[in-house]
Amino acid sequence: MQLSLSTWQEVEHYLESRSGIIMPVGSTEQHGPGGLIGTDAICPEIVARRLGEETGVLVAPTLGIGVAQHHLGFSGSMCLRPSTLMSVVRDCVVSLARHGFDRFFFLNGHGGNIATIHAAIAEIHSEVSMRTRPVERSLRCTLSNWWDSAGVRSISKELYGADEGEHATCSEVSVTWFAFPDHIKKVNLSGRAPAWSGIHDSDDYRRRYPDGRIGSLPSLSTPDAGRRLVDASVKDLAGKLNRFLDEP
Amino acid sequence: MQLSLSTWQEVEHYLESRSGIIMPVGSTEQHGPGGLIGTDAICPEIVARRLGEETGVLVAPTLGIGVAQHHLGFSGSMCLRPSTLMSVVRDCVVSLARHGFDRFFFLNGHGGNIATIHAAIAEIHSEVSMRTRPVERSLRCTLSNWWDSAGVRSISKELYGADEGEHATCSEVSVTWFAFPDHIKKVNLSGRAPAWSGIHDSDDYRRRYPDGRIGSLPSLSTPDAGRRLVDASVKDLAGKLNRFLDEP
Amino acid sequence: MQLSLSTWQEVEHYLESRSGIIMPVGSTEQHGPGGLIGTDAICPEIVARRLGEETGVLVAPTLGIGVAQHHLGFSGSMCLRPSTLMSVVRDCVVSLARHGFDRFFFLNGHGGNIATIHAAIAEIHSEVSMRTRPVERSLRCTLSNWWDSAGVRSISKELYGADEGEHATCSEVSVTWFAFPDHIKKVNLSGRAPAWSGIHDSDDYRRRYPDGRIGSLPSLSTPDAGRRLVDASVKDLAGKLNRFLDEP
Amino acid sequence: MQLSLSTWQEVEHYLESRSGIIMPVGSTEQHGPGGLIGTDAICPEIVARRLGEETGVLVAPTLGIGVAQHHLGFSGSMCLRPSTLMSVVRDCVVSLARHGFDRFFFLNGHGGNIATIHAAIAEIHSEVSMRTRPVERSLRCTLSNWWDSAGVRSISKELYGADEGEHATCSEVSVTWFAFPDHIKKVNLSGRAPAWSGIHDSDDYRRRYPDGRIGSLPSLSTPDAGRRLVDASVKDLAGKLNRFLDEP
Amino acid sequence: MQLSLSTWQEVEHYLESRSGIIMPVGSTEQHGPGGLIGTDAICPEIVARRLGEETGVLVAPTLGIGVAQHHLGFSGSMCLRPSTLMSVVRDCVVSLARHGFDRFFFLNGHGGNIATIHAAIAEIHSEVSMRTRPVERSLRCTLSNWWDSAGVRSISKELYGADEGEHATCSEVSVTWFAFPDHIKKVNLSGRAPAWSGIHDSDDYRRRYPDGRIGSLPSLSTPDAGRRLVDASVKDLAGKLNRFLDEP
Amino acid sequence: MQLSLSTWQEVEHYLESRSGIIMPVGSTEQHGPGGLIGTDAICPEIVARRLGEETGVLVAPTLGIGVAQHHLGFSGSMCLRPSTLMSVVRDCVVSLARHGFDRFFFLNGHGGNIATIHAAIAEIHSEVSMRTRPVERSLRCTLSNWWDSAGVRSISKELYGADEGEHATCSEVSVTWFAFPDHIKKVNLSGRAPAWSGIHDSDDYRRRYPDGRIGSLPSLSTPDAGRRLVDASVKDLAGKLNRFLDEP
Repeated sequence: MQLSLSTWQEVEHYLESRSGIIMPVGSTEQHGPGGLIGTDAICPEIVARRLGEETGVLVAPTLGIGVAQHHLGFSGSMCLRPSTLMSVVRDCVVSLARHGFDRFFFLNGHGGNIATIHAAIAEIHSEVSMRTRPVERSLRCTLSNWWDSAGVRSISKELYGADEGEHATCSEVSVTWFAFPDHIKKVNLSGRAPAWSGIHDSDDYRRRYPDGRIGSLPSLSTPDAGRRLVDASVKDLAGKLNRFLDEP
Repeated sequence: MQLSLSTWQEVEHYLESRSGIIMPVGSTEQHGPGGLIGTDAICPEIVARRLGEETGVLVAPTLGIGVAQHHLGFSGSMCLRPSTLMSVVRDCVVSLARHGFDRFFFLNGHGGNIATIHAAIAEIHSEVSMRTRPVERSLRCTLSNWWDSAGVRSISKELYGADEGEHATCSEVSVTWFAFPDHIKKVNLSGRAPAWSGIHDSDDYRRRYPDGRIGSLPSLSTPDAGRRLVDASVKDLAGKLNRFLDEP
Repeated sequence: MQLSLSTWQEVEHYLESRSGIIMPVGSTEQHGPGGLIGTDAICPEIVARRLGEETGVLVAPTLGIGVAQHHLGFSGSMCLRPSTLMSVVRDCVVSLARHGFDRFFFLNGHGGNIATIHAAIAEIHSEVSMRTRPVERSLRCTLSNWWDSAGVRSISKELYGADEGEHATCSEVSVTWFAFPDHIKKVNLSGRAPAWSGIHDSDDYRRRYPDGRIGSLPSLSTPDAGRRLVDASVKDLAGKLNRFLDEP
Repeated sequence: MQLSLSTWQEVEHYLESRSGIIMPVGSTEQHGPGGLIGTDAICPEIVARRLGEETGVLVAPTLGIGVAQHHLGFSGSMCLRPSTLMSVVRDCVVSLARHGFDRFFFLNGHGGNIATIHAAIAEIHSEVSMRTRPVERSLRCTLSNWWDSAGVRSISKELYGADEGEHATCSEVSVTWFAFPDHIKKVNLSGRAPAWSGIHDSDDYRRRYPDGRIGSLPSLSTPDAGRRLVDASVKDLAGKLNRFLDEP
Repeated sequence: MQLSLSTWQEVEHYLESRSGIIMPVGSTEQHGPGGLIGTDAICPEIVARRLGEETGVLVAPTLGIGVAQHHLGFSGSMCLRPSTLMSVVRDCVVSLARHGFDRFFFLNGHGGNIATIHAAIAEIHSEVSMRTRPVERSLRCTLSNWWDSAGVRSISKELYGADEGEHATCSEVSVTWFAFPDHIKKVNLSGRAPAWSGIHDSDDYRRRYPDGRIGSLPSLSTPDAGRRLVDASVKDLAGKLNRFLDEP
Repeated sequence: MQLSLSTWQEVEHYLESRSGIIMPVGSTEQHGPGGLIGTDAICPEIVARRLGEETGVLVAPTLGIGVAQHHLGFSGSMCLRPSTLMSVVRDCVVSLARHGFDRFFFLNGHGGNIATIHAAIAEIHSEVSMRTRPVERSLRCTLSNWWDSAGVRSISKELYGADEGEHATCSEVSVTWFAFPDHIKKVNLSGRAPAWSGIHDSDDYRRRYPDGRIGSLPSLSTPDAGRRLVDASVKDLAGKLNRFLDEP
């Protein structure tokens, strides 16, 4: 059940028995020569929708633009400053809380968002913990990345080993090929990209990783691998989500 | 051409000859008993994609959550504060400007966003006009709503007349039915909703318009009307967009 | 009754029977070769004071500096960023609300302020609608421009027709001449200014409209026209104001 | 020469030989039983205009709403938060600096503004001193209160002695009576108000000083004293202003 | 009793009978050729700890970085923008208020902080005075500088007279020599530094006061003078602190 | 070499050959029944000073108040909101960058700060990567926790095994006992604290972990263990720091 494709009365009905919501959050940034700029939004979105079907938990619209300052050396990358994304997360949570939602499961697709989302959650809790207003409802937020799954890691290792890499990975590219089979862009890659050696600003990133990939060889990606990865992710995250919702 | 489904090298190639981009912006809020909560994001997104195909202009990801405080009395509605949306717009524009984009065509689907987007544009220009830094590139932003089209207005009038309404209109519901034929939710409506009488906060809205609609009777909507409306909108906005891009 | 020329006990007395207040808001910016930089503050201020006399509604001090980034290419123009003006509007409303004021009638004199004031109002309502605190009092704000009046439009058309223009209009200059007869600055204008063709930042404005006027020929202005325009505006806005205050 | 009553071409001409500007800043807040709510804006405005005439220095519009949280226990008082006033001051200075103004003489009428204006000035200088952008022009701002004058203090002492007080003083009320002889509000005061004993928030203020005055007996005020005080203030501030403008 | 060296249970016990806390606040900035960069944090810290012992009032950790934009022309100086320090002060006060602290005695060591701390206090009170939330507890904050003491002034005058100066004073250097006898840095100074002539930004400061001192000859400093100054400050501030805590 | 105990000329001299600086950052929050509230500031401070001696790298003053909203259920805990700490980090980095520092090694003592410091670093880089100003110097920031050390982990495991815990750990308490032997507070603990089960807001924390500890039995702490842990941390972090400074 997707929030965007529901009516307010359906949501009201949902809230009679449940109060959790899946919040997919991604990024819009370069993913190497053949990788889609939307990769980090597409992956959590497809997993979130499947996870929603599996668990019956409502799925919010994907927050598709994230903290990607380090990718701005490559055309088309977009970026919210961390402070902006924190305001977005806060407003989404607070407006949904008005209706009775109180368990927010952020399903993330971009490493660069992790710190900021955790900071956003701490900022939200600070309002309550500092008691500038009476606490009406105890909100809880948690963050999982779609790849935080033993199943996903095992498939990635089996299929790609050292070619998986850290950015524009074989696995995430596979998921986008599974999701958008009409947008598979095969490119000739001469080999694995330079290995991870840290990142600072966007000029630094481009100097270290000239075509945008980090450590990966995504020409090994396949739609079928994408399908397996999504299945594995949904299975493991369903467990996480249910444990979060059942937490006393 | 959608930014999310492109690679950075395709965008770099695009920027060799063009510098415009379509920025769809919507809202996630109640649309009456049978209307989808995503209506105001769905409409500009479908128009934007068709407009991109028609004109060859790149389409950014939809900013799907807008200024909808007045709808928060109905479950599922989400809201960014105006100051938050202004930061989002600013960051998107500034990060795209880094690559060479300098003509931003905001294609909006929600009346409640209009003032804030104009304020956001003025805030962006203030940075340049106040000259806190040397001006490197003259950015231009403009805003059109998908219904700012003689063709759209003419079809709405022809088909719905006084039943069109101001919120959860027959026309916007028709567009969502055209876009998502599997999510058509027929509901029995006893008649036209209360006519427009102003809006203040969310409690005020719910008191004035108890089921969320304003002045409309969207049970008259049809997918076919949606198709015609999208066609008309794309045709008229293509003219607007090209004039904007050609402005000296 | 002007707030600035009242005592706190007079205001306390006023609040025993009324809760509305007129908030004049303007701008300080170039108005062409002969136009006063204060034009957009002077016009709403004179109308507001007369409107206050007519209706017995209290008049707040004029917020005289507005969003005028596009005028910064001309010496003497001042500008608040939209985010700053939004904070000003919020603080004024919130501090007056403490005393019991709950109907705020913004009487505006500058087109460039409209979007920002609407965004400010939405930001104020967001605080309530997002329910971060219990709602104590239902505030309502509305915005009218001094020229939002059939009477004003009719006089402008009768006297100036196509020479009225869009900035440094014959009508607004007439009002300032009526208000400050000692500061009438007659200048030779060789003809009507370039017609409206859009505005982006301040450099763009100056290039399109080299002497600051848009489409107008304010050498046709007269103090007597100013008097008639103020009368017409007050008459029409009194109706609007009373309807706003009487709204259930 | 008042900015509001000038044209942009007059300002451009002024800037050919001068670069200083007087920035009157006040407050809108209770001034005891008979004192005008606008007292702290009226006093610096009348002094600023006379000072401008005396010295030929341009006078900006009065920023009439200040930091007056402690007065909010009395009806009609308005307040900007310090952070808001800091943004206002910053935007005014930065937009005027665009034209070539670089010496800003804040002429203040409200004790509660002093700290915030100094903080605002430090914030403005921080932008330059932190070198986030190349320094184009060395801005200088200074603050004087209209009563920072040996002449003013001497007249106050001569006329009122211990009855002068700290808020709603005999002197400031006299200045408003001189400025607005039609708005003299005589009230019977049973004696001097409670002496200064500190101030915290607005409830605390009202408890300590029940009618709003601090230590004063403004029934002793006269329009003639107001005239003498303005003369004295202008004379002494002219010296201060010229020294500021002549500083190497 | 220092907060940092206490356990939460000790603080809980303290709060059973008391609700005041000493908040030392300083700066990290150049203090002339031989002066320690930490001077303005060291002085209030040593006084605060002694004052805490004398009065039994708890001492918070020192906020050691202040508003020092004007010192940024000298290596090693650090600076918080006023708006940042205001947020820090607000968060510290609000989080301590949660536990029951309601009397905050800011003990300051840097002239450049005074305006900003007063603005921060007004900002905190604005939240209450504007009544955006029900007032739970009446917070009070006050500010004293460690040199606000007749005893301190008398010793400074006796020992240093006109050589005391305004920055990198003999007295503050003496206090640091008393506090850190192992870090006494004797330098040859050819004479008293240039006298106070105002300060604007950091370039202006360095031009006026080339070695960082203002009007002082700190080679006259001695650890023994530091000891006497601390004793005198603690004695006088103890009186101030107790009067503040006893205020009805 | 500590910044606070240096003169500006010593720093200027340092900058002739080096450009790195160690930035200790901690927190002020409950650490269980016997743990010092300053534990998380004390640990990185002592390690930072030793690390500075070992490597010759300058040490900035400790930022001693961090993001600790979840500890506010225990008296004495202080908290900066994440957005506030981000502004503090930004201002410290930017003001030091003015002098030529361009390698910032944040040495952290509090798990709750990690996300926010990473977000702060991304915010700083966003300014450069979004190119709102010409890039003058390529700043680099990195974060290490004092316990990010194989040596530290090995000692903790050897000495405490499963009693080490996650908050108010045996190891951190040992370090404070080593640092402040006069402030060792022995308390009787009936056993290991409840094991880690997640944290949300401050009420949630207190309910899960009633005396403030998580999973630890810090009565096993000893000053001697503290000494060994500091030695191990300094040794391992010296390697990290030097690699960071030598990065091309």
